[in-house]
Amino acid sequence: MELQQLMAAIEPADKAWEEKAWDRLRSQIRPRGSLGRLEEMAARVGGMCRSLAPDLSRKLIFTMAGDHGVAEEGVSAYPQEVTAQMVFSFVQGWASISVLASHVGADVRVVDCGVAADLSPEWAVEHRKIGKGTANIAQGPAMSREEAQRGILVGAELVMQAARDEGYSLFGTGDMGIANTTPSTAIVAAFSGRPVAELTGRGTGIDDEAWKRKVQVVEQALEVNRPDPKDPVDVLAKVGGFEIAGLAGAVLGAAAAKVPVVCDGFIATAGALVACRLVPTAKDYLFVSHKSQEVGHAVMYGLLGLEPILDLGMRLGEGTGAALAMSLVEAAGKVLRDIKTFEEAGVTDTGH
Amino acid sequence: MELQQLMAAIEPADKAWEEKAWDRLRSQIRPRGSLGRLEEMAARVGGMCRSLAPDLSRKLIFTMAGDHGVAEEGVSAYPQEVTAQMVFSFVQGWASISVLASHVGADVRVVDCGVAADLSPEWAVEHRKIGKGTANIAQGPAMSREEAQRGILVGAELVMQAARDEGYSLFGTGDMGIANTTPSTAIVAAFSGRPVAELTGRGTGIDDEAWKRKVQVVEQALEVNRPDPKDPVDVLAKVGGFEIAGLAGAVLGAAAAKVPVVCDGFIATAGALVACRLVPTAKDYLFVSHKSQEVGHAVMYGLLGLEPILDLGMRLGEGTGAALAMSLVEAAGKVLRDIKTFEEAGVTDTGH
Repeated sequence: MELQQLMAAIEPADKAWEEKAWDRLRSQIRPRGSLGRLEEMAARVGGMCRSLAPDLSRKLIFTMAGDHGVAEEGVSAYPQEVTAQMVFSFVQGWASISVLASHVGADVRVVDCGVAADLSPEWAVEHRKIGKGTANIAQGPAMSREEAQRGILVGAELVMQAARDEGYSLFGTGDMGIANTTPSTAIVAAFSGRPVAELTGRGTGIDDEAWKRKVQVVEQALEVNRPDPKDPVDVLAKVGGFEIAGLAGAVLGAAAAKVPVVCDGFIATAGALVACRLVPTAKDYLFVSHKSQEVGHAVMYGLLGLEPILDLGMRLGEGTGAALAMSLVEAAGKVLRDIKTFEEAGVTDTGH
Repeated sequence: MELQQLMAAIEPADKAWEEKAWDRLRSQIRPRGSLGRLEEMAARVGGMCRSLAPDLSRKLIFTMAGDHGVAEEGVSAYPQEVTAQMVFSFVQGWASISVLASHVGADVRVVDCGVAADLSPEWAVEHRKIGKGTANIAQGPAMSREEAQRGILVGAELVMQAARDEGYSLFGTGDMGIANTTPSTAIVAAFSGRPVAELTGRGTGIDDEAWKRKVQVVEQALEVNRPDPKDPVDVLAKVGGFEIAGLAGAVLGAAAAKVPVVCDGFIATAGALVACRLVPTAKDYLFVSHKSQEVGHAVMYGLLGLEPILDLGMRLGEGTGAALAMSLVEAAGKVLRDIKTFEEAGVTDTGH
C-alpha cells in the first residue's frame, strides 16, 4: 500500500446513518438528551459504522513504541533504556496499560516502531522497527520523508489487518517512548504557530531547569528544521517520531476501515493531529479519550475540534486513557442498540 | 436494627491503609502521580477496604423507586404512572440502567420504596413500600419522622445484607420517581440556605412556565414545613421522598459495611447528603459518580466536599452515572493491586 492509496480509501462517516441514530436515541424510554455526551458519541458511532446495532466489543489497543535522539538533550526525567524496559513490562502484563486494558476487556498489541535497543524476537511484540531511535531534532530532521511515510503505513496496515482478519471493531492508540513529549510539543507548535513555552509541559516530571531547557530545545528544533505546517509528512519527518508516525497511521487505518478509534493523551493526539491534517475526514472516526495534564494537549484537541471524553488528571500514556474511554464508546454503542423505545416498552411518552 | 445502632456502626476509613496505598502507588512503574484522580480513588479504596489488593468486581446497583404527592402541582414533564412503567422496564432489562449496568458487569436490584401503584408481587423487585407515594410537600410534610427512619433502614439493611450474604464489594445508588427533582431541590435548599431559583433545574425537561412553578412550589414547601437543617431526618421527612430515604440508607449501610458506594446524580446525591449530614464519616466510603446537568447538583457535591468522577452532561438518574463511574472505581482498585513496582519489574527508577 502507498500513502496516497491509504488517503484515497478514507470516506466520511455517513450523515444519514447518524440522523437515523438520533431518531432512535430520541425515541428511547428516557427524557430526550438525558444521556448527554453518551448520545453524541452513540450518534457518531451510528454514522461511522452505518448501523443502529453496532457491536464494539472486540477492542484492541496499539501501543506504539519508539526512541528519540533528542533524549540526549536532557529533556526527560528518565533515561532511554526505560523505553525497552517498559515494552518488556507491557509484554509481561505488569504495566498500567496491561491492567486497564484487561479491565475494559481490550487486547493490547505493542509495536516496536523504533526503539533504540534490539528487542528480543521472542517478545510478543510487532517488530516493525523503522529505525533505532530518531535523530536529535535539535540538530536536524528526526527521520527522512520516506521513513515517515513508512511509519504511517505500518500503523495503518496493522489496524486495517486487525479489523479485516480478526474482527476488531474498536481501536485505541497509545505510546511509549522516553522524551516523546518533546517532538509532540514541536508538532503542535508547528501546526498551531503558538509560542513553544505555552505548549511545553513537564512530561514524566522534569524540574524548572529541565523545563526551560526543553522549551529551548523545541524552539531550536523548529528553527533548525523549519517544518511546513501545510505538509503534515514534512512536520512528522522533521520534528516527529517513529511511534508518532505509527500513531498517525493507526488513525488513518481505522478511518479507512470505517472503525472508530480512540486516541490516548498528548503523544497519541499528536499522531492523530498529523493524520487529520493529512486527511481531514479521518476525524469522523476519531474520539479523544481524555484531557491530559500536558499543557499543550488542549491546543491539540482544539485544532481537531474534538472534546475529550474523560478528565481525570492523567498524564501517563501507554494507551491508559484510551482504554478507559474505549469502554465509554462501547457503552455508547450499546445505548444506541439496546435501550428500548417508548413504543417497544409501552411507556407513556410526553415528547420531552 | 434501629437508626442509632446503624449510625454507631460506622467507622472512618483507615488512614494508615490509605498511606500504605499511596506508598504502593508511588512505587509503581510509571511517573509519580501520572494516573491522576485514579490514584486518589485507589488510595481512598485502600483506606476503605483496609487492603492493598481490593477486589471490587462484585458490583450491585440499588435503584430506589418512589412517587411524590407534589407531582400534582405540575412540576414534572411526565405523569406519575411512568414511575411504575419504568420499574417494569428495569425488571425487563429494557431501560438505560439495564444496558449500562450490564455493560460494566454490575447487577441491578430495583427497590419499591414507595411507588404510588401496587406493583405485581411477581416482578423481580424488592417490595419494601413505606407508603403509596409521599404527601404533597407544598401542603405539608412528605411523610412522618418514623417513616423517614424506616426508609433509611430499608436502604441500609439491603446494602448490608448484600455485602454480608452475597459478597458484593462495590455498590451504586440510583433513583426512579416522577417529580423527584422537586424534593431533591428542597433538600439541597434546606441544607445550603441558598435561593431556590439558583438550585432548581429542568428535571426531565419542563418549560419556562413549569420551571417558575417548580421554584414557587419548592419555596412553598420550605415555608410550610420549615425543615431544620441541623436535623437531617426532619429535612428528609418534611421535604424528601421514600426513595430518597432509601438512597440515604444505602450510603449509611455501605459505610457500616466498610464497602465503597458510588452515588448517581441529583436525586441519589440528595440522599447521600442526608446520609453524610447524619454521619459525616459516611463520606469516607462515598464517591460521586458524575456532574449532573441539574443546576443544584454542584451545590450538593460542594457541601459533600467531593468532586464527581465523570462529566458527560447526563441527567437521567436510574443509576446510569453510577454504573459508568463504578467501573472507574473498580479500575482504581485494580491499579492499586495489579500494577507492578519498579523493584518487582526491574525498571530503572529515577524517583520522578
